[in-house]
Amino acid sequence: MTALGLMGLGVMGANLARNLADHGVQLALYDPAAGVAQHLAQDLGSAGTACATPEALVAALAAPRTIFLLVPAGAATDAAIESLLPHLAAGDVIIDGGNAFYRDTARRQAACGASGVHFLGFGVSGGAEGARHGPAIMAGGDRTVLERLAPTFAAIAAKAPDGTPCFARVGDGAAGHFVKTVHNGIEYAHMQLIAEAWQLLRRLLRLPHEEVRDLFARWARGALSSFLMECAVRALDTMDKDGTPLIEHIVDTAEQKGTGQWTANAALEYGVAAPSLAEAVHARCLSALKDMRLAMEASVGAPTMAFAGDVKALVAALERALLSANITVLAQGFALIRAVDAEHGWGVDPATVARTWRGGCIIRSTLLEPIAEAYAAAPDLDNLLRDRVLWRRVTAGDAEWRQVVVTAVAHGVPVPVFSASLAYVDGLRTGRLWADMIAAQRDIFGQHGFARFGSPGRHHADWATLDLTSPAGGS
Amino acid sequence: MTALGLMGLGVMGANLARNLADHGVQLALYDPAAGVAQHLAQDLGSAGTACATPEALVAALAAPRTIFLLVPAGAATDAAIESLLPHLAAGDVIIDGGNAFYRDTARRQAACGASGVHFLGFGVSGGAEGARHGPAIMAGGDRTVLERLAPTFAAIAAKAPDGTPCFARVGDGAAGHFVKTVHNGIEYAHMQLIAEAWQLLRRLLRLPHEEVRDLFARWARGALSSFLMECAVRALDTMDKDGTPLIEHIVDTAEQKGTGQWTANAALEYGVAAPSLAEAVHARCLSALKDMRLAMEASVGAPTMAFAGDVKALVAALERALLSANITVLAQGFALIRAVDAEHGWGVDPATVARTWRGGCIIRSTLLEPIAEAYAAAPDLDNLLRDRVLWRRVTAGDAEWRQVVVTAVAHGVPVPVFSASLAYVDGLRTGRLWADMIAAQRDIFGQHGFARFGSPGRHHADWATLDLTSPAGGS
Repeated sequence: MTALGLMGLGVMGANLARNLADHGVQLALYDPAAGVAQHLAQDLGSAGTACATPEALVAALAAPRTIFLLVPAGAATDAAIESLLPHLAAGDVIIDGGNAFYRDTARRQAACGASGVHFLGFGVSGGAEGARHGPAIMAGGDRTVLERLAPTFAAIAAKAPDGTPCFARVGDGAAGHFVKTVHNGIEYAHMQLIAEAWQLLRRLLRLPHEEVRDLFARWARGALSSFLMECAVRALDTMDKDGTPLIEHIVDTAEQKGTGQWTANAALEYGVAAPSLAEAVHARCLSALKDMRLAMEASVGAPTMAFAGDVKALVAALERALLSANITVLAQGFALIRAVDAEHGWGVDPATVARTWRGGCIIRSTLLEPIAEAYAAAPDLDNLLRDRVLWRRVTAGDAEWRQVVVTAVAHGVPVPVFSASLAYVDGLRTGRLWADMIAAQRDIFGQHGFARFGSPGRHHADWATLDLTSPAGGS
Repeated sequence: MTALGLMGLGVMGANLARNLADHGVQLALYDPAAGVAQHLAQDLGSAGTACATPEALVAALAAPRTIFLLVPAGAATDAAIESLLPHLAAGDVIIDGGNAFYRDTARRQAACGASGVHFLGFGVSGGAEGARHGPAIMAGGDRTVLERLAPTFAAIAAKAPDGTPCFARVGDGAAGHFVKTVHNGIEYAHMQLIAEAWQLLRRLLRLPHEEVRDLFARWARGALSSFLMECAVRALDTMDKDGTPLIEHIVDTAEQKGTGQWTANAALEYGVAAPSLAEAVHARCLSALKDMRLAMEASVGAPTMAFAGDVKALVAALERALLSANITVLAQGFALIRAVDAEHGWGVDPATVARTWRGGCIIRSTLLEPIAEAYAAAPDLDNLLRDRVLWRRVTAGDAEWRQVVVTAVAHGVPVPVFSASLAYVDGLRTGRLWADMIAAQRDIFGQHGFARFGSPGRHHADWATLDLTSPAGGS
């Protein structure tokens, strides 16, 4: 295996180093923090050599050199690149394995390209554990360079259930980092759906902790099988020192690191309907308002009303609703990838993305196989919901999904992502929607014009003059 | 009145010129398009002088000069500024009356400030009609300069029902343009709510066109009184040549110009929960997928089911729900303004913003008076829903609002903003929410840590090891 330079030896960097060493890759190691590289090199024995400076790191490698960056996104990444570039030669390769903003990746590719250095953006998913034992890697950049590096990264990547490595070149340019960003946006929404189900089971139906735990465990073995469902089971399996469920001691506020926000931003910027991805971010913002929520509940009372319906039926409906909503979230994520790829011309193949997500990454689930098949069969599929197999799965739970949202709304339990996802599906099935009223209003007050059925171009109308006296304040 | 230079004489610029001339303001006029300034100057008679170049425009004014830009946002604005700056002196003033992105305004203020020129950002709302007869103007920038200009712009601004001019300095820096951006974000959500009501009345309840028209007209005279409700009535009042309602001939796709998107982006960027503002943008994106919606309806069938319930009751509920949801949208908009203002230190007074919105602008409604009162009474109010008066109005329609969302969801009519707004209110009233599950999962796969009740700092747990075999693909 080719030798590799590793720069940035935090949790992710060190674990990837161990993973690479296990697969016989010779490593040159550098970290700005004193002693870190030496310490790791000792652990790795003959596989690792510590380098004292970026220059020494470059010198330790034979051309064409490949240096894998695992430093924090943003300024630290730029600083690392600047410390390396002067010492690199044309044909050398820098790989950014951090959670970079895709526009930064494009900028860095241009900057490095000016001196003939290839800059690749790798989306690495799976957390610390994944890095150590097998992450999913979404690679973006030059095809020839990636073909040369593929064996190394395929070796350390997670394996899909069918044994294929979860490493792939998903496209040119910043495709790898953008696909990783959308992966995280989908992750936000899938986590929120599980959390909404948890709220309904525990705090509306008031099921005993053990029952919810067993239910999630059963779901995690069935159609809902996913890494995140397994995490939910682990969360409920874990007890505090006093033997009570740990989760009951955890403050109900969720933080965020930005990638979910980037995904929602991209949807807005490119005009792609992705309400579920957006709602998942807003739900985290709402959760952060803990003090206000407590104050509101104290002053006006909680909205949650006692449930007197059929518990068994609602629990069964919830499993169906989760499956339908999870697929809908994925449909929005893939629609976003396709729209942004069309703008940038990265040449992303959605089937390859779905295959790469089958193992190692946080959103891995049994849904990704049929998604890969759908795109393999119809590469130009405009929306996953238009694939027969996936649609059958979504619609099989349609009535139950409605029942879940209706019950939640009627009882005052907020389920923003279940709701937004169902509204998305209903909207996508509705040939005639509300927006004729919006188009009319935009022409009335803004002369923006509107489209007419059966006659092309923009149209304007002489709108009726208003016969109302306006208590709303004259113009 | 002080003389004013006007640059950019399109619909907005020309109408503002006429408005200013009506109020005795001497105008120097310039437009890059040949003949435009001369033509307008002839219309204005003694009030207007045409200038052939930016330099001549500057020369036509006495120091300290004030030049009002009404050119398209973006590059055109930068070009206009560059064409003026070399000819301006310290103490001169440039006002940007376009729909500028607030970060651009901050950048331009710095650039102009370097040569002692004051740059002010004016958010001008009310469309072409408003510009001609009285817009709402949200001004941002230097206090002393704005005090000098106030009489001129107060004169041409719309008047609130109590006679106060809808012109105000809302804060320092880019405050004027940011407040205008949020105004437009609120406009998107209020329009979408009306459109969702329209969909329910016309396409679920299948009320005759005349009935919906009369209903909207009644609402527009009652608690829902607003300019947008009046626009809705005008839309339904207008017939096509063949005597059929024009709206039935309008394609149900809504376009957007970006300000709604900027508002949703700002909410994400500053971590402010504003799901209704986001859903309104995503709803427009969904409406744009007309061909896909038609194809989906053709292949899998429309979701809308026949309504067999009490029509009168649902119609009455809808009026209550609209009021509650409108207030909730405003609460999110003001929360966003407060959060972003806190970051930038513009010193925005929410009561002043609410007062400025009472007339002339697109979102003017009878709701803005109680909102102004709420903030005047409690300037530090963290959310409008915590004001007793407004909360009483929201909660008075709580049951009806639930009924509307439940009915829509049960019958397959997408009402994303009605739903998201109700979930926001329910979430804000819920002391214990879903996010403990999300916090647990983030520590399980990402070691992000979590907060514990009764013990400060971040915590980590030894999470139960998973006893499930994972069909979802090993890590």
